[in-house]
Amino acid sequence: MSIRIITLLTDFGTEDYFVGAMKGVILTRSPTSVLVDITHAIPPQDVRAAAFTLSAAYSHFPAGSIHLAVVDPGVGSDRRPVLVEAATHLFVGPDNGLFSLVLEQVPDARIRHLINTAYFLPNPSATFHGRDIFAPVSAALAQGVAPEDLGPMIQDPIRFESIQCESMADGTVTGRIIHIDHFGNCITNLPWDRLALSADRPYSLRVKEFQIQKLAQSYREGASDPGKPFLIRGSAGFLEISVQSNSAARQLKIRVGEPVRLIWG
Amino acid sequence: MSIRIITLLTDFGTEDYFVGAMKGVILTRSPTSVLVDITHAIPPQDVRAAAFTLSAAYSHFPAGSIHLAVVDPGVGSDRRPVLVEAATHLFVGPDNGLFSLVLEQVPDARIRHLINTAYFLPNPSATFHGRDIFAPVSAALAQGVAPEDLGPMIQDPIRFESIQCESMADGTVTGRIIHIDHFGNCITNLPWDRLALSADRPYSLRVKEFQIQKLAQSYREGASDPGKPFLIRGSAGFLEISVQSNSAARQLKIRVGEPVRLIWG
Amino acid sequence: MSIRIITLLTDFGTEDYFVGAMKGVILTRSPTSVLVDITHAIPPQDVRAAAFTLSAAYSHFPAGSIHLAVVDPGVGSDRRPVLVEAATHLFVGPDNGLFSLVLEQVPDARIRHLINTAYFLPNPSATFHGRDIFAPVSAALAQGVAPEDLGPMIQDPIRFESIQCESMADGTVTGRIIHIDHFGNCITNLPWDRLALSADRPYSLRVKEFQIQKLAQSYREGASDPGKPFLIRGSAGFLEISVQSNSAARQLKIRVGEPVRLIWG
Repeated sequence: MSIRIITLLTDFGTEDYFVGAMKGVILTRSPTSVLVDITHAIPPQDVRAAAFTLSAAYSHFPAGSIHLAVVDPGVGSDRRPVLVEAATHLFVGPDNGLFSLVLEQVPDARIRHLINTAYFLPNPSATFHGRDIFAPVSAALAQGVAPEDLGPMIQDPIRFESIQCESMADGTVTGRIIHIDHFGNCITNLPWDRLALSADRPYSLRVKEFQIQKLAQSYREGASDPGKPFLIRGSAGFLEISVQSNSAARQLKIRVGEPVRLIWG
Repeated sequence: MSIRIITLLTDFGTEDYFVGAMKGVILTRSPTSVLVDITHAIPPQDVRAAAFTLSAAYSHFPAGSIHLAVVDPGVGSDRRPVLVEAATHLFVGPDNGLFSLVLEQVPDARIRHLINTAYFLPNPSATFHGRDIFAPVSAALAQGVAPEDLGPMIQDPIRFESIQCESMADGTVTGRIIHIDHFGNCITNLPWDRLALSADRPYSLRVKEFQIQKLAQSYREGASDPGKPFLIRGSAGFLEISVQSNSAARQLKIRVGEPVRLIWG
Repeated sequence: MSIRIITLLTDFGTEDYFVGAMKGVILTRSPTSVLVDITHAIPPQDVRAAAFTLSAAYSHFPAGSIHLAVVDPGVGSDRRPVLVEAATHLFVGPDNGLFSLVLEQVPDARIRHLINTAYFLPNPSATFHGRDIFAPVSAALAQGVAPEDLGPMIQDPIRFESIQCESMADGTVTGRIIHIDHFGNCITNLPWDRLALSADRPYSLRVKEFQIQKLAQSYREGASDPGKPFLIRGSAGFLEISVQSNSAARQLKIRVGEPVRLIWG
């Protein structure tokens, strides 16, 4: 049995019975599965935030892992329940854009519409597909049910507009803040590997009325000039804005979606 | 070994060492147990909230699961530590009403007073029975110790007044809000199955100064009239009040305990 | 395979992908490890709070457990990554004082500087050693890699000043508040076992402008005089200040670090 791990990512919070119910359903049908919470603190109904966190987390798990992701404002409507097979990882959840970034990372992913109700709980509710559809389907996959048993392939999954940044004619790169983390670091959609920042070619990042030139190798190095924002290579592979011992988001009043621009010279 | 899963439900929060200590005690005595958090975010000392969440979660777990529940304002006093055997599930925790709803659901449940100190940690503290009594007793059960080894049966467990709603002589049904969830949905104690709501017979739910007539099949359907509260069949089996993309509790200023009344015509 | 449990304690919060990424790395390299969260809600960068919580939690786990602790303001700087072998427990994390209390409890602990990069992820980042260094090293230990393979012993780990209280010439004992728990109880660094409090010898604890004389055997006993603070033997072995059904910290406006003094007579 190679598939064992099932990760969970939701906006359910941890104060209700929701997450426990999902885990109970999974363990009833797949007692040997190992359950790992990614997070249940996605802001309510924020599918974009969920898409980012999922894309940053999943690849660290072993091949064959199943990722159960439920941020699902359309539960009970005609939005489709889907399975995404992306390289060695499987994803189960609603077709509402939640898997956009995974699909961007794995262009040849296969998407299936989950229509085989034999793998759902009997009489699924219209309000809690996490428990009634996605949990038992994940358990079925963990038990070795083949994806093709679950439903037919579809070609038109919901995707958000790309989160990729844009290289402009004048050489600048425009993007935006796609995530603010627990420490208040502001993560841009400018991928470090493609920026080729170097001391030989001066640059600065513009965000709101600020112009940030300092690039720190570590958070502590950033502390040499206390309270001043600096750039750093973030752990998810993107350029990020940070302030030592403070929340950059709070200090600079930055929110998700804020435009940024990398300027040379 | 059929009993393996131990769920945990407390008001301990997750920022202290409390939950870790309980899990360490369990895994020391029962290394193969699978631990699943239901929640540790019950409002401090709110035994009623714990009773609701426990009753909504436990039945999703496999037969033989052990449910360790500790919301325990009377720790160290003469309140009794108990084991509840309710059909195929076992419950361990304080005798303070926490198991009221389980006992209402499973009238022939057996309750035992945990008096066999051989299964406690040595020298239990007066402040942390979760770690010193309930965790090791749960581990013992997981390891196959028989309930009758743990203590004698009792007939007088603490029970809250019933949470059941009341059908009045004039046909109306009166109840109250018994839970507000992470999304702000307000869960009543009116069980969907017994209301027999139908388009053929007009009805409305009265709560505070509001009168809610719309019944939505899904949260999204409820969104057709933005900002307007609607009724929906909740996932725990009760009628609930919801507002699309907002907290019904905040918008309508509803708290737990608020009376509701279902009126026909 | 006797070493199986890996506990996690961080200041990462649970809303980001950080904890999930660490767990994914561990389970990729050590699929049979059992992961247990102690907490991820240490206040950001509060190494002292982490040291307390870790020291209160770890000893409840089985011999051979590995404790992965990451509160790491110096990540990416020259602060050393270390392994602490303290009796039957292993600790992995940054050398910044986080293991101070463990080292105080286990004076003959061995500390190693983690320099064998063969057990790190390839190309570790400068911002997330939890994922790139500490998680894979913990997995290696769980898989049986010997501590001596990971790096040489060091004799000069960073330690905080002792958290021990002081016995004064006049017989009083001075200390401070070292932790405030989820319920608002204020934990002092006065170890219960060494105070030998008894009804035969009157005493009181001074904190701010308050003088607390009542010692309760349980929280409920403390309730006999509602709203009045009382002393109690806390579950981590220290004298603590409590108020029934309220937060003592909030009511008395006590913060971590507040001096206390036990006076006889």
